[in-house]
Amino acid sequence: MDLDVVLSARALDPDALRGRLVVVVDVLRASSTVITALANGARAVIPAADLGEAARLAASLDPEVSLVGGERGGAKLAGYAAGNSPLEYGPEAVGGRTVVLTTSNGTAAMAFARAGASAVVGAFLNAGAVAAHLRAALDAGTPATVLCAGSGGRVSLEDTLCAGLLLDRTAGPEAAARLGDSAQIAHALYRGSQDHLARALFGAEHTQHLIRLGFADDVTYCARIDALPVLPVLRDTQIVLAHP
Amino acid sequence: MDLDVVLSARALDPDALRGRLVVVVDVLRASSTVITALANGARAVIPAADLGEAARLAASLDPEVSLVGGERGGAKLAGYAAGNSPLEYGPEAVGGRTVVLTTSNGTAAMAFARAGASAVVGAFLNAGAVAAHLRAALDAGTPATVLCAGSGGRVSLEDTLCAGLLLDRTAGPEAAARLGDSAQIAHALYRGSQDHLARALFGAEHTQHLIRLGFADDVTYCARIDALPVLPVLRDTQIVLAHP
Repeated sequence: MDLDVVLSARALDPDALRGRLVVVVDVLRASSTVITALANGARAVIPAADLGEAARLAASLDPEVSLVGGERGGAKLAGYAAGNSPLEYGPEAVGGRTVVLTTSNGTAAMAFARAGASAVVGAFLNAGAVAAHLRAALDAGTPATVLCAGSGGRVSLEDTLCAGLLLDRTAGPEAAARLGDSAQIAHALYRGSQDHLARALFGAEHTQHLIRLGFADDVTYCARIDALPVLPVLRDTQIVLAHP
Repeated sequence: MDLDVVLSARALDPDALRGRLVVVVDVLRASSTVITALANGARAVIPAADLGEAARLAASLDPEVSLVGGERGGAKLAGYAAGNSPLEYGPEAVGGRTVVLTTSNGTAAMAFARAGASAVVGAFLNAGAVAAHLRAALDAGTPATVLCAGSGGRVSLEDTLCAGLLLDRTAGPEAAARLGDSAQIAHALYRGSQDHLARALFGAEHTQHLIRLGFADDVTYCARIDALPVLPVLRDTQIVLAHP
């Protein structure tokens, strides 16, 4: 089983993703926001690696059927219709619209994932759907990488925890413990926290930052395992729902 | 307690180390080799970040009282007196000599650690001595960072495991579980493996690489916790033993 984990996307050589299925994980909050927007009827989410790209994309879309969202430092950007809280991406906000999203770490990792053969977006919200997709790909002989966005070039607890959960569900606990170094580390973290996952998530540095910004409800929401059994897939530059 | 962990030294901003005690961990094998060479009577070890620097340093030293060692890809470099196996750094080889050492990841991390206020070299071999030094520094109000060398920009199991052991001994199990994200991850890995540390170490990717190169004995040697209770400290560009 060729199942790999990268604990921080920054500074990764894109060659490491070539020919692989990539699962992009940014639990707090880009992955959770993409999953939520698509589950709530958005036509597509276009991840923008930076503000300039977001502005260019926004200018190319009809404002009637699009929405531009994103954050830096956790806070909504000036002039943007929405921040990066998944709770802002309800059906009335995103139904039938194309969302342009730019965030500090996650959307750059999503754009980076184009180096893979295919890419999907994963978080706790859709862990079961992603694990089923991963298992099917591995069974068909496709190698796969769980790509954690991390935070500013460093490893983040919430993404590592989610990677560990995905490995546990995909490979099973015995096999996961025999994978590569980063996979073993993620799996050990998950195994040590699986009976108190929400509490572990609340111990993460970025959770504490979000709480200070008033986003505690976002963390509770993002911790809901399998709440949205959808599979967002990257098609060219857009993320759309996979047809079942 | 301001005790931080960096799981991969590559791509780290040196500003993150400013004013801090830095513990450089490269279990397999640069840290273990430095500890061994100094415990066996080497006057000093000079870490060279690359081959050019190693050549310049070697040219500046009297060959009668120096030794140049190192590896790339795990194998001894052509024309070097020794590789990076700690077993090559016995008293007869290094007693009274200055060692110039260049390795794939560890010696660059050691050179990088000069950005800190002070730096020491840690591994399983001297975990107790390092933990005591760390605890004393933290008690005196000095912030500290355990800097894992990692491997080619990625996180490595053996360094993360050693960081977790150092945290457990320095902060205690309860406090270690409430530190930053990377520290929590390292500690969770250690807690999950502490009853079978040697077996966990043999599951690391780099261990398997070293075994293929014929260095299984090195791994067994490097797994010996507290075998060499010495404290190598960085003084300018040289690593020497701390006076007790």
